[in-house]
Amino acid sequence: MIRTSAPKFRVLLALTILAFGGVLWTGPAPAAAQSPDGVLKLLPIPERVAVRDGRFRIDDGLVIGGPGPASSRAFMAAARFMSRLAGRTGLFLKQDFLAAQSPPGEGGIRYAYERAGKLQPNEDESYALSVGMAKVTLTAKTDIGILRGLETLLQLLSADETGYYYPCVDIADKPRFTWRGLLIDVGRHFQPVDVIKRNLDAMAAVKMNVFHWHLTEDQGFRVESKVFPKLHRLGSDGMFYTQAQIRDVIDYAADRGIRVMPEFDIPGHSTSWFVAYPEFSSAPGAFGIERKFGVFGPAFNPADERIYPFFDAFLKEMSALFPDPYLHIGGDEVEGHQWDANPAIQAFKKKNGLADNAALQAYFNKRLLKILTKHGKKMVGWDEIFQPGLPTDIVIHSWRGQKALVEAAEKGYQGILSNGYYIDLSQTAEIHYLNDPLPSDSPLDDRQKGLILGGEATMWSELVTSETIDSRIWPRAAAIAERLWSPVSVNDVDDMYRRLGFVSIEIEELGLLHLKNPDMFLRRLSGGPRVKPLKVLAEAVEPLKNYQRHGQAVYTSLSPFTRFVDACAPESLPARAFRKKVDLFLAGKDPRLGADLERILAAWRDNHALVLPLVAGSPALREIEPLSLGLFRACEVGLEALSHLSKGEGRPASWAEERGQVLAEAAKPAAHAELAVVKAIAKMVEACAGSVK
Amino acid sequence: MIRTSAPKFRVLLALTILAFGGVLWTGPAPAAAQSPDGVLKLLPIPERVAVRDGRFRIDDGLVIGGPGPASSRAFMAAARFMSRLAGRTGLFLKQDFLAAQSPPGEGGIRYAYERAGKLQPNEDESYALSVGMAKVTLTAKTDIGILRGLETLLQLLSADETGYYYPCVDIADKPRFTWRGLLIDVGRHFQPVDVIKRNLDAMAAVKMNVFHWHLTEDQGFRVESKVFPKLHRLGSDGMFYTQAQIRDVIDYAADRGIRVMPEFDIPGHSTSWFVAYPEFSSAPGAFGIERKFGVFGPAFNPADERIYPFFDAFLKEMSALFPDPYLHIGGDEVEGHQWDANPAIQAFKKKNGLADNAALQAYFNKRLLKILTKHGKKMVGWDEIFQPGLPTDIVIHSWRGQKALVEAAEKGYQGILSNGYYIDLSQTAEIHYLNDPLPSDSPLDDRQKGLILGGEATMWSELVTSETIDSRIWPRAAAIAERLWSPVSVNDVDDMYRRLGFVSIEIEELGLLHLKNPDMFLRRLSGGPRVKPLKVLAEAVEPLKNYQRHGQAVYTSLSPFTRFVDACAPESLPARAFRKKVDLFLAGKDPRLGADLERILAAWRDNHALVLPLVAGSPALREIEPLSLGLFRACEVGLEALSHLSKGEGRPASWAEERGQVLAEAAKPAAHAELAVVKAIAKMVEACAGSVK
Repeated sequence: MIRTSAPKFRVLLALTILAFGGVLWTGPAPAAAQSPDGVLKLLPIPERVAVRDGRFRIDDGLVIGGPGPASSRAFMAAARFMSRLAGRTGLFLKQDFLAAQSPPGEGGIRYAYERAGKLQPNEDESYALSVGMAKVTLTAKTDIGILRGLETLLQLLSADETGYYYPCVDIADKPRFTWRGLLIDVGRHFQPVDVIKRNLDAMAAVKMNVFHWHLTEDQGFRVESKVFPKLHRLGSDGMFYTQAQIRDVIDYAADRGIRVMPEFDIPGHSTSWFVAYPEFSSAPGAFGIERKFGVFGPAFNPADERIYPFFDAFLKEMSALFPDPYLHIGGDEVEGHQWDANPAIQAFKKKNGLADNAALQAYFNKRLLKILTKHGKKMVGWDEIFQPGLPTDIVIHSWRGQKALVEAAEKGYQGILSNGYYIDLSQTAEIHYLNDPLPSDSPLDDRQKGLILGGEATMWSELVTSETIDSRIWPRAAAIAERLWSPVSVNDVDDMYRRLGFVSIEIEELGLLHLKNPDMFLRRLSGGPRVKPLKVLAEAVEPLKNYQRHGQAVYTSLSPFTRFVDACAPESLPARAFRKKVDLFLAGKDPRLGADLERILAAWRDNHALVLPLVAGSPALREIEPLSLGLFRACEVGLEALSHLSKGEGRPASWAEERGQVLAEAAKPAAHAELAVVKAIAKMVEACAGSVK
Repeated sequence: MIRTSAPKFRVLLALTILAFGGVLWTGPAPAAAQSPDGVLKLLPIPERVAVRDGRFRIDDGLVIGGPGPASSRAFMAAARFMSRLAGRTGLFLKQDFLAAQSPPGEGGIRYAYERAGKLQPNEDESYALSVGMAKVTLTAKTDIGILRGLETLLQLLSADETGYYYPCVDIADKPRFTWRGLLIDVGRHFQPVDVIKRNLDAMAAVKMNVFHWHLTEDQGFRVESKVFPKLHRLGSDGMFYTQAQIRDVIDYAADRGIRVMPEFDIPGHSTSWFVAYPEFSSAPGAFGIERKFGVFGPAFNPADERIYPFFDAFLKEMSALFPDPYLHIGGDEVEGHQWDANPAIQAFKKKNGLADNAALQAYFNKRLLKILTKHGKKMVGWDEIFQPGLPTDIVIHSWRGQKALVEAAEKGYQGILSNGYYIDLSQTAEIHYLNDPLPSDSPLDDRQKGLILGGEATMWSELVTSETIDSRIWPRAAAIAERLWSPVSVNDVDDMYRRLGFVSIEIEELGLLHLKNPDMFLRRLSGGPRVKPLKVLAEAVEPLKNYQRHGQAVYTSLSPFTRFVDACAPESLPARAFRKKVDLFLAGKDPRLGADLERILAAWRDNHALVLPLVAGSPALREIEPLSLGLFRACEVGLEALSHLSKGEGRPASWAEERGQVLAEAAKPAAHAELAVVKAIAKMVEACAGSVK
């Protein structure tokens, strides 16, 4: 008998196959441990899952054991696993784990692997997990596979009236893409080591494996150079990582099966370098650390022979510091104004037959490639580095899009995708989730497809601080993690959101602040502990999308990111739930939703009266009054429309037009944010009007 | 005209003096910036405060300036000040602070000081702050005084219909005690650097100035020794501070005007040392890191001559690492069983005329004192080091009580108090607040009083992890901070609690997790985002006090501290507010409180039905059912009593006895916690019964 009380379609299918065909593995299964409704909640969904009858009970006698010394990666991961399991269950586990890593006997959780995994692309991360009623067996080719399997096992934790348990399952899992990254830009806003570490933990929880550390920007040079100490001393406002800290982060990531790829963005995005070395820029003059955001002029001078020994020495130092086989040189957004204005550079181009600035940058890149190759690194760069004449073992990192990636692959270049994964733009998890590095209509052949290594979520940090960055990354990055790990056929958006809710809470145990800090901001803004009305308003509000926030104020690296908009999630899950309900209601799927919508709309409407006194007491909150008023008015319109719809009364076009104007007003940005529920209410209005025709 | 709309008595007094006598300074004034009701909310209360008419408006044109380079302590503090001010107000300040520390002109905030302060006892921390309508002037003897004044200025932030402002005030302030410390025990539970740093920030916010770093314990040796690396390698489970991290913390503390005094607890509490060096212990055998808590046998062997060169080399290294003039050698709780059982030690005692183990420890301490003196350090130790023959420049740190401190002072020894400041025991802020190192009935003469340097809050870490430690320290430690800073006459407990609420929210901006993490635990325990009923229950619950929790389970350093009890504040402020209301109601002070109490009791009673489904879904929450049921029943009794009291109906003793039994049952510990409102309800029952007599 199956214990999942409400199995979803594909689980049911899988079980049917099991029952009738004796087949051990099914095809891609949906979510696997059980949420309160009995449906599994694994994220990312494993390649193959089969749920069997029975439960493995978890009590304080649980033990875990495997080969290897206490210093081994798998052992340390198993220790963290037990600690997290104890934290979730409150169990006082009897196994004194640190003293006895391999308890005698056969029961409990036993893991085994063949060899230590290497931190490089195409390493084996597969694992097989078998939960029986008396024993859990986790096997893998490499210890990295063990790490991935332990995260799956944590997500399998389930509860019933007796206590905690794992459902009996057989899982065979491996990633679809080998490069599943998260970029964190620490240039525009520095992020201390503890921020990096907790995000590495969260990455590991959803099986991401590349931390792309964007270390230099116009706004800051964030890595200690012992060879050129002026770089970090003058270019960082004192906010940089020491080499000891970098080694610590690399070790921490390695313990979690995560590669650390550094990026030194050149020849553009490099103002902070020129604070120390103005002579390497393409224009005269002193340079200061950039405080504003945008694309800036300063760029290295490829015509100046002195920069090459400089990069040789610098990249030698960094190549030794960062063990990853890849090093990212950026290369994006070099506008070339400084190059155009510099006669020596123009003469250099002419002399060397470099037709345009793209050719000049290609020249620069070729020189750099030699240097990197000498120091044992493979080169990664943004789309712009894709120029004729570079060898095919470089990796093109696409911010421009899949088309660019396809072009590169057709010419034999490896690529990773970030276009569509810009989590700084406050887009929905759905958009990112459905963005596939290898969509089903890809024109590439199988060999070319193999060149698409994966993708990276990019956390550009113009508008984030260490207080807000977690909420800008999580939980949405987990949707990208699933896209890059799970089979291509895993595409159920609603089910992804269902599981995202669990992951979001689970990763809090790793120190993530994404769920905690909104309340903190609201307390700080209101000056008191009672922030419920502000939370209710925030449910209906999202930050302005894409680059719209930059149009609202001149943001700098010193601006406050502590306002209402910063307390709002990039994607409001309650707002999404509301929109879904409206769609289902209008489609006539469930008439009972009418009462539900009425309750929600009335609560939002009535919230305005509760927001006003808080606004009156706090100048910092005054900017949100239009949002609250807009929600009030939109909800009034929504309730009116709902009433007509419920009674089946059509309304004339003029009625809809008037309401539409109210909604258009309510939809206007305020406080650098916008209401995320107005379009759904407009649909209700249109439905009333439509029914007249 | 005074803008404080509801001035409290002493503010009014102060203003009266100002208005009629032209006196600039008043005596100790109560809280000064204004809370929403117009009353100032400074904590600690300055020595002298006078509120004047007028407001200094704060807008995005605010500037700050003072002498000294960008690397100076005052400048960096001013930069942090501006950043925190921007964070609280949401203002995009125009001053590009990092680029222009001293803007031209006269307006804004101007600070000046005579010299850099030294991080040592009795350094001048005084400051004078004058807020005029056009200008804020902050002056001090030392830059440390500037730091203290900037914290006061942050607390002065007020708001009205126009925007943010500072009320015009004149403040002259200096601390009553020079030693205002917080001890954090990182031995029993390691606390990473970011935990230490955020607590240093919070200390600075309430003007504490000594971080006592309890670095070694039976359960862990937490500091890297380059001379004896086996100590941290074998004694820490890998959880130790590198010397680079320690230097970083010391610098961080120094930037905030905080001394860092290390403690190496010897000769007892030292099991973790003997993992590396069993030969230095007083008993044979291999030693393992202790996992349990209590007082353990292992102790250094004072009779073994080899330990002295060892300590010489070790303390030489540590004396160089820690610049503070003081070094704490612990010395507490040496039970002497190992000494008694060791014939060589017995022979040594006889030979050297050491009558008992106290004399043996005094011998050990004298040897250590020589070593410390050689390395330029003054010795601090717990009560036990107070033995005849030690020079009077040592400092006695009293965990035993004021009597011990008085005895020491009478013999000419300096002392600091921690008895009564054990914030690990879940006692009320009130208890700590009213515990004075120099109570008004002190038998000491003035010279002797000068030997009482101050006190330290002690965060022993048996039952705390980095997830819970902030809530175990804050906000209660702020009450101790005020006790040690403010004039002896500052004793208004209710007013302290009023201000504590503001401080608690303000220090969140420094990264403190005390208000955030309870929700996180409840989400983790319930597996979902809706934790309101659990929060309501937690309002009425506190962890078991003193050492009672240890009687409920065998806690170890590996136990989970993620249960409901860990989500409960050591002192529930809502429960305290309820108790106060009951007292006022029963005293007949405000009959309207009856309706208020009825609302609260009904909400708590009705909460039980909401808790039950969450408990059913989570095995980890099952233990709280008795608490929730107890609250339900106690509230039923309370509502019954309230009804009788409101009607003026007396009840017979048998009625009260029956209700008393229900309440006695409800008062029983469950889930390592207890209800904090039962006694107040019992008072209501007694009042009913009493009215019959």
